[in-house]
Amino acid sequence: MPEVRNAWYVAGWSHEVPRGRPAAVRVLNEPIVLWRDASGRILAFEDRCIHRLAPLSLGRCEGDALRCMYHGFLYDRDGRVVEIPGQERSARNLRLRSYPAIERYGWTWVWMGEPGAADEGLIPSLIGMEHPDYVSFHGELEYAAAAHLVRDNLLDLSHVSFLHAHSFRLSEVWARERPNVTERARSVRSERWIRNEGRLGMLESGEPQVDTYFRFEMFVPGVALFALWTFPPGTADATNGGPPDLSRPADGFATQAVTPLTDRTARYLYINGDVRRGKETSYDEGKRAVTEQAFSEDKAMIEAQQRNIDSTPDWRFLSTGADRGVTIFNRLLERAAREETAYPTVQQER
Amino acid sequence: MPEVRNAWYVAGWSHEVPRGRPAAVRVLNEPIVLWRDASGRILAFEDRCIHRLAPLSLGRCEGDALRCMYHGFLYDRDGRVVEIPGQERSARNLRLRSYPAIERYGWTWVWMGEPGAADEGLIPSLIGMEHPDYVSFHGELEYAAAAHLVRDNLLDLSHVSFLHAHSFRLSEVWARERPNVTERARSVRSERWIRNEGRLGMLESGEPQVDTYFRFEMFVPGVALFALWTFPPGTADATNGGPPDLSRPADGFATQAVTPLTDRTARYLYINGDVRRGKETSYDEGKRAVTEQAFSEDKAMIEAQQRNIDSTPDWRFLSTGADRGVTIFNRLLERAAREETAYPTVQQER
Amino acid sequence: MPEVRNAWYVAGWSHEVPRGRPAAVRVLNEPIVLWRDASGRILAFEDRCIHRLAPLSLGRCEGDALRCMYHGFLYDRDGRVVEIPGQERSARNLRLRSYPAIERYGWTWVWMGEPGAADEGLIPSLIGMEHPDYVSFHGELEYAAAAHLVRDNLLDLSHVSFLHAHSFRLSEVWARERPNVTERARSVRSERWIRNEGRLGMLESGEPQVDTYFRFEMFVPGVALFALWTFPPGTADATNGGPPDLSRPADGFATQAVTPLTDRTARYLYINGDVRRGKETSYDEGKRAVTEQAFSEDKAMIEAQQRNIDSTPDWRFLSTGADRGVTIFNRLLERAAREETAYPTVQQER
Repeated sequence: MPEVRNAWYVAGWSHEVPRGRPAAVRVLNEPIVLWRDASGRILAFEDRCIHRLAPLSLGRCEGDALRCMYHGFLYDRDGRVVEIPGQERSARNLRLRSYPAIERYGWTWVWMGEPGAADEGLIPSLIGMEHPDYVSFHGELEYAAAAHLVRDNLLDLSHVSFLHAHSFRLSEVWARERPNVTERARSVRSERWIRNEGRLGMLESGEPQVDTYFRFEMFVPGVALFALWTFPPGTADATNGGPPDLSRPADGFATQAVTPLTDRTARYLYINGDVRRGKETSYDEGKRAVTEQAFSEDKAMIEAQQRNIDSTPDWRFLSTGADRGVTIFNRLLERAAREETAYPTVQQER
Repeated sequence: MPEVRNAWYVAGWSHEVPRGRPAAVRVLNEPIVLWRDASGRILAFEDRCIHRLAPLSLGRCEGDALRCMYHGFLYDRDGRVVEIPGQERSARNLRLRSYPAIERYGWTWVWMGEPGAADEGLIPSLIGMEHPDYVSFHGELEYAAAAHLVRDNLLDLSHVSFLHAHSFRLSEVWARERPNVTERARSVRSERWIRNEGRLGMLESGEPQVDTYFRFEMFVPGVALFALWTFPPGTADATNGGPPDLSRPADGFATQAVTPLTDRTARYLYINGDVRRGKETSYDEGKRAVTEQAFSEDKAMIEAQQRNIDSTPDWRFLSTGADRGVTIFNRLLERAAREETAYPTVQQER
Repeated sequence: MPEVRNAWYVAGWSHEVPRGRPAAVRVLNEPIVLWRDASGRILAFEDRCIHRLAPLSLGRCEGDALRCMYHGFLYDRDGRVVEIPGQERSARNLRLRSYPAIERYGWTWVWMGEPGAADEGLIPSLIGMEHPDYVSFHGELEYAAAAHLVRDNLLDLSHVSFLHAHSFRLSEVWARERPNVTERARSVRSERWIRNEGRLGMLESGEPQVDTYFRFEMFVPGVALFALWTFPPGTADATNGGPPDLSRPADGFATQAVTPLTDRTARYLYINGDVRRGKETSYDEGKRAVTEQAFSEDKAMIEAQQRNIDSTPDWRFLSTGADRGVTIFNRLLERAAREETAYPTVQQER
């Protein structure tokens, strides 16, 4: 499974990188240190000192510079060596690999490819933490499984009827009816009506039945927005199964990122929210518990799937009608990876 | 160490597979799901759905069918796909690998080779759990060591004089005198008299001395029956060291199975019993404790042996007179493995 | 990083090998059993029985012989098989690999190379445990890192200004001024004055400032003596920065050994002492705590460095002026390894 490099990957949460203290993250199996300069702007470097590969995430922020705390090499904002203790001659020709980095939606994003190609416009439109219209919660799971298995899980929601039979308890319509899947420039979108059911995650609440319109969109390299709008029963039929008027904010959302840590591990970060209807200050605890139970069901299944893959030489998957979104997104990723001008590994000038 | 495939392997205990809930086992590094059909009969499938390799042991029994609980593929008793949710066209040409399976002696047995060659007559005659003539206990150990090391341990009982010096406290006769070893069609049998000693595991009990006749037989691929008969002192000499009359049930037994999980791990299952002499309802606790201590001595030694092997390139063993049983059994296994018509890996029709 | 074989490696502590009980150690990835003969003299064998590779460290001392407690093979002081239970014919032609071994300074030392080349004169002059002039403490750390990284750490003390900024709190002079480094036959020596500072590890004690002369010497294959002498301020200038009169015992020392266990793990043993000035019976607890904190800082950094190396294909280090000692010592080791007449692996006569 080739991974795209010219893309923004979610490295973690903004709050993981306080001022004055560097933080270690990992993306595409590369150790990265995130830190903030004197103005608070986030910066990302390769997390190994060019001297003896000590991690800079164990280093010290010194204003606009970051010092390795093994033998004291000091790097400026561009990763240039500005001091080697006890050595007079300039070392500015020595340079650490740095990555374009940015913060958005409560997340830190790192561009893993050609720095010159980094374009903030490629960060998709999502609903982030602390959005004023929503009450939300957030969390994360570290998977002992490849990122593509976690992405595929999200891209084929037919699994909710079976895997989440005891948590979400959704109807088998999710497995039996096909969503409308469309390929876009850097994403795959999957949309569907679910008619006349209780609200997602609230099946037992006694609330009235609704028609719900779901839109799930996964963007390269593995960031997704799941959004839903509820309507009175009959709306789906009235629109002939086509999309309703979506000009109002979504009633609920899940913003999700799947980041490959290594070939066999991934970090899954999520922000789930419901539109603020009245004075609520926090997300419904019961719905949160159901959601987290469902996420742990995903994790158990996908990690077991990875173990089976690991013990199966020449394994392959079977495609079905239900996983069309999986097929299209993976083709899109493969094409993007192929089209990257054979990415030249950034060499240190050592 | 080649492993025979055309053989019945002990996958586990019958009670590990309750009705209605599939169970995961592993044999010869293959993940296998055991489950029961509507009539309670045990069935064994490859434990990975043909769709995306999810384990069926996380699935759901539905009468005579087993459903994958990831995306809902449904399999019949023969492993044929009888339903792909949301897909009309028949998928009966898709088929999961299934293994002949049977229950006997409280164990589940799986035939790992050519299904057509599966012959229940190849399951050896053993003494199982709940045999009415015996009080017994059972247990198991998971070894961080290759199955062949565990088998070899059982096949060379000269080790009991040294390794179990602090538990069984048997005399050095076990190491110094050679048993009578005979090769049979699918087994190796080792027999001996031990003259004028206390009962096995009861050295301190103050019981009178006895002559004991021991018979140990290991069957392909690694299942063994250890049985003993006690006689008044002098009987061994009276039979000139030959076998006594063994027409009565053995006074004690140990039924044992060594199942390779991976190349470096094995499951060891045992059922130990003593003939019921009076009204006892359970095995003697003191003897049980001694036995379990001895088994843990075996485990510590064999796992250390495995670690030494792992760190020794081009390791090899030295043969002695005492391990003739080992040599013969391993030769028997190798010949059986070689004679298997180059086993054709069962291919899924995917 | 090639390792020298014709050298004495510190295998562990003398007190790890009580009379009558063999002990397992590991050097250069070889399992070794240490045991004592009837006279208490230490002996070192390959820790695997020639029969089936069982560890002899699980064996039993029988006077001047060591018995494998799996099947009872008995070895004499030279590693010759003197008994195979139940077998008459002599097995004295079978022989276990043995290593020259010796005890000194509270440590056990094993010669890993050609036995004929073992020369006790190659054990360096150190200050050991229980030296009457000193109060001392000792300890050890097991590193999840290659031995050469631990050695390099000791050989470039410029790190103390940064890595130990919160423990030793030494001045940046350590990083900014260069010690005097000299190459010797089997060692590298590094010497320096630190002028007008508090005693090492006692910065907050309110004691008067001193000039301190430090001498660090690392011997092949990775044993070091760090010693210091304090003088009234002004002494360094009075000697023009050259060595002072060192005819009196050092005021403090650290004797250290770095032993490769595997390619990725090492054992670090240390004995730290201060000259006994009055009636003290033990090392200062506060200084000990500071030292152990510093050692744990080394460990965290070096293990992180190892993880970075592991995830960096084609990694290499950058040399600086400060790590001249590292460069010289590693060159010395490489030369010694190269010069060893292509070491013939000792073959068992099996």
